[in-house]
Order: sequence, then C-alpha cells, then structure tokens
Amino acid sequence: MTAVKHSAEARGPARLIGVDWGTSSFRAYLMDAGGKVLDRRESADGILAVQDFDGTLERHCGAWADAHRDASILLAGMIGSRQGWIEAPYCPCPAGAEEIAARLTRHVTARGRTVAFVPGLSWSSPSGADDVMRGEETQILGVAGKGRQVMVLPGSHSKWVEVFDGRILRFATFLTGEFFAAMSKHTILGRLMAGEAHDPKAFAAGIAASAEPGGLLHHLFRVRTGGLFGRWPADSLSSLLSGIAIGHEIRGARDFFGADRVLVVGGAALAARYAEALGSLGLAAEIGAPDAAARGLTRLAARSVP
Amino acid sequence: MTAVKHSAEARGPARLIGVDWGTSSFRAYLMDAGGKVLDRRESADGILAVQDFDGTLERHCGAWADAHRDASILLAGMIGSRQGWIEAPYCPCPAGAEEIAARLTRHVTARGRTVAFVPGLSWSSPSGADDVMRGEETQILGVAGKGRQVMVLPGSHSKWVEVFDGRILRFATFLTGEFFAAMSKHTILGRLMAGEAHDPKAFAAGIAASAEPGGLLHHLFRVRTGGLFGRWPADSLSSLLSGIAIGHEIRGARDFFGADRVLVVGGAALAARYAEALGSLGLAAEIGAPDAAARGLTRLAARSVP
Repeated sequence: MTAVKHSAEARGPARLIGVDWGTSSFRAYLMDAGGKVLDRRESADGILAVQDFDGTLERHCGAWADAHRDASILLAGMIGSRQGWIEAPYCPCPAGAEEIAARLTRHVTARGRTVAFVPGLSWSSPSGADDVMRGEETQILGVAGKGRQVMVLPGSHSKWVEVFDGRILRFATFLTGEFFAAMSKHTILGRLMAGEAHDPKAFAAGIAASAEPGGLLHHLFRVRTGGLFGRWPADSLSSLLSGIAIGHEIRGARDFFGADRVLVVGGAALAARYAEALGSLGLAAEIGAPDAAARGLTRLAARSVP
Repeated sequence: MTAVKHSAEARGPARLIGVDWGTSSFRAYLMDAGGKVLDRRESADGILAVQDFDGTLERHCGAWADAHRDASILLAGMIGSRQGWIEAPYCPCPAGAEEIAARLTRHVTARGRTVAFVPGLSWSSPSGADDVMRGEETQILGVAGKGRQVMVLPGSHSKWVEVFDGRILRFATFLTGEFFAAMSKHTILGRLMAGEAHDPKAFAAGIAASAEPGGLLHHLFRVRTGGLFGRWPADSLSSLLSGIAIGHEIRGARDFFGADRVLVVGGAALAARYAEALGSLGLAAEIGAPDAAARGLTRLAARSVP
C-alpha cells in the first residue's frame, strides 16, 4: 500500500530538509510542504564513516538551508543514537506521528541552525522482552495507511511491524542479515560456497526446507551436505542459505503477527527477494513505494512544533 | 587371557588398540577383548594439528603395538575423512555394528602394521536432504542398548540419533556450537558480552525464550536488548545466547524425532548443560557412561574380519 496523504493532515513548514542518516549511508532530501522531493543528496557518509557530523551536514545541506532560511531540519536514524551526534531517547510503542513528533530532540549547530533528531522506538513484549528500532520508524510512517498493516523492512536487522491507522502498535527484530553474513563467513558452511549470485531454484529450496521438521539449526546443515554430495553447485549454496534464513524469518514473523498479507519496505533487490519468499510461503506481498523515509519525515515535520 | 563380555557377542582379538581421532583431539585406548581399558593416551594431535598421521600414530601407540603383535588397530573419526589419512566411504543408515564393521577400510602403515578405518554414516531424509557423521557412530555403538533410544551427542555439530536394538536408524545434525561461536564473535551480539561463565538463570531464560513466538532469528535480538536495557549483566549474555541456541536445538529435535526421553553422550560439562535444558523443556534426560568410543570400538573389533 502506498502512502495516502490525508486531507486532515496538518501543514508543515514551506520547506523541509530531511535526512535519513544511518550507520553506513546518508540520504538527504529537500522537500516542499506536501512532501514533494525537490532535490536530494546521497552518500556513504554514515555515522561509522564520518566523525564531524556538524561539518558533514553543512557540506551536504548547508546550501539548501541558506536558500531556505525557514526550513525545518529533521534527522532520523542512527545519527540520533549514542554512537551518533545527539542521543534522542526511544519513544515507547504504541506510537504514531504525533507521539514521535512530540519527542524530537533539538540541537543548535555550529552555524546556528536548529536541527531536530527523530527518536527511535522501543517496545516491550508481555513476556518482558525488549525491542528497539532507529530510523525504520520514519520509513514506516512514510508508508502507513488506514486500517491494519503488517510490514517488513528487511536488512541486517529486519524489522517486522504491526501498524493500525498509522500508529505503530508493536514490532519485532530478526537478525537475519547478520546471521547470514556470520554463517557464510565464519562457519564451515562458507568453505564450499563460491560467490553470492542469486539462484532462484536454490533460494526456493531453502525456503521449502524452512518448513520441514528440525528447525533452523538443523536446516543449516543442508548447505554443508548440499555441497558435499553435489546436490548444489558451489555458487548456489549462498542462495540456499539465504532461502533457509529468510524462510525462517518469515515463518517466525507470521507466527508472531498472524499476517496473511505483508508490505515490504526496502531496496528493490532485497524487497523482490522477500516478495518471492512470502509468495512461496503463501503470504500475499506488496512492495512499498520508494522514498518512504522522505514521506515519513514530511509527516513528522507537519506535526512538530518548531 | 579370558575375555569378559556379553555371551551373545562375537569374540574379538585378544587386544585392541582403538583410536578416536577427530579434528582437534586424539584419544587412544589399549583394551582387552572385553573392552576393558588397560591404558590410554590423550593429546591435542587432531587432524588439523598434525600432518604426519603415520608418525603420530606410531609415537602414541607404537609401543602398545610392539608389545601386542596380534592386536587389531581401529581408527574412528575425521582421520577417515578426505581431510584425514585415508578416506573411508560413508556407510548408509540404517546401520548397526555388523554393517559398519563390514565396511572398514584397511591400510598398511610405514611400519607394516595393518590399521582399519571406521566409516562414517550417511542418511538421506525422505525429502531428499542428506546428513553425515564421522566418529559419533562409534560412540553411539558404545552406548546402544535394547529397544528404541533417542540420543544427542552435543558439540559444534550436535548429532541427534534414533537407535533401535543397537542399529542406527536415522540422525540429524544441528549446527548449534558453530552457530553459537559465530554469533558471539562475529555479530553485534558479542559487543556487549563479557566472558563465558555459566549463569544458570540466564541460560534458563534463554531456553524459555526459545518456546515463545518469533523463532530463533528473533529471539537472538534479546541478547542485544538484554544488554542494552540492563536486564542482564554483560557476563550473563553468553549463557542467555547459549540457552536460546540449545533450546531451539532441542525443540527442533523433539519435533524431528518425537522423543520424550533422551540419552546425552558427551563431555561432563556440556552433557550437564544439555540435561538441564532437556529437563526444563519437559524431556527426561539420562547421561551416557564415559568412554563410549572405547566401547564402540570394541564392539566393532569383535565383528570385524581381520
């Protein structure tokens, strides 16, 4: 489902400078009050790559800010974490744009510009387990619509989210991407692997394996014997492992959220992979429109009190 | 010398030199025909640590062999793999001591001694997945009894096995140990961990978590947030992860084999950990007697044709 702009939404500042600033990437947008992207900057200046956050922001967005003196500047993502520029405390779920906008953390830069950091979200399960996200909440707001939505934002730490009428009710993190990388690079499974090209047949076999008895720790061993016994060529084993991992993620999340329809929010290649996996496990998949973070920042700006 | 043994069992050679030679360890036993261990040698001369297999065997067991010229010499474990000394082809399951003894691979050493390599086992599931073991089959034979037994041999690659009247019907590998190591050392989970001391409370919490919805990839994130939110001290996080991993292994294996009673075969510390986990998941656990490999080698020697 794509974002539907509601007529009831508050109107934001004439111009908005929104930055989705994560661990390994920096994406900035100059937008009008309706969320239309007028200009954009993308770079690899994630928080692990740069130390001078103030200077980096100035370098990428200073000209926009000079040209639009009344523009709000909103920063979302890991830039608002302890490892970032200013720590913006987590906002507990359930939370929608109002609650999140009410908890922006403001800071004045060396050049005297006021910037606002978007808080991440936290959620504690009834059994006492905590979960957190930072950055994804902004993308979620960008694709949130009416009624109930279950979304996945795939990645190193995939986030599955239940949203109702634009409010994020609860969410769960799955360590799928990190798991895949650690198992590929640091266990016996990697020894027979060659390359990471996508093999749809091996990927589908991995997803099918995830539904068999024994669980993930057992299914993993197929990547070993699949190579040893020549059932799969070396350059298909990575896809087999990926299918096993994503299959288990989806099955676990379905169990958790009880969804039969899932909105996939992320980069095109990974989103297509997830849609493929969801379909083969009998779930309807829809791929979210791009620039979700930009739209989410617009919604937050429209609700923030300067 | 009169052999003391099962009256129904075939009679083996007067003396047996049995070696359980794995990836990282070398364990040799001098035994009488009844399986009584008369002498033993243990070292870290696993197949990854030594290149000269012939010389290593001679160094540890040459004096025994000189003193007992009629002794059979049996080698089990990864020494019989492609990475070892002589590759002994897998024996397909179901298989008992007869089938395994019939497939020993013989070789004459530089000093003119005949040594026999015990084959590993393979099993292919009805769905077409393969599984293999090498070395564990000998330990299993050492603890096999009458009727149906479900066993676990915990480790880097835990083996779960279904045995009936001494025959190994089928088995399944779980990559639990390697998974634990890779996740501890090569993902974000390790960042907050300090030490690997056993905390029974955190271990039990991990096992309990494994029964909640979401699956392993989600439960892993508790190790992150458990540290972030101060629910567990840094030196308990390793036990929490261990409980999550072992809990998932046991739940997967229970699903696979349908067992309510499990025989744990392995080193004392790890066996105790598994017994604890089995108990808290409602399964009866029994810990196997030590020197299982030595007894298994005796059973094989009793059935082998020189």
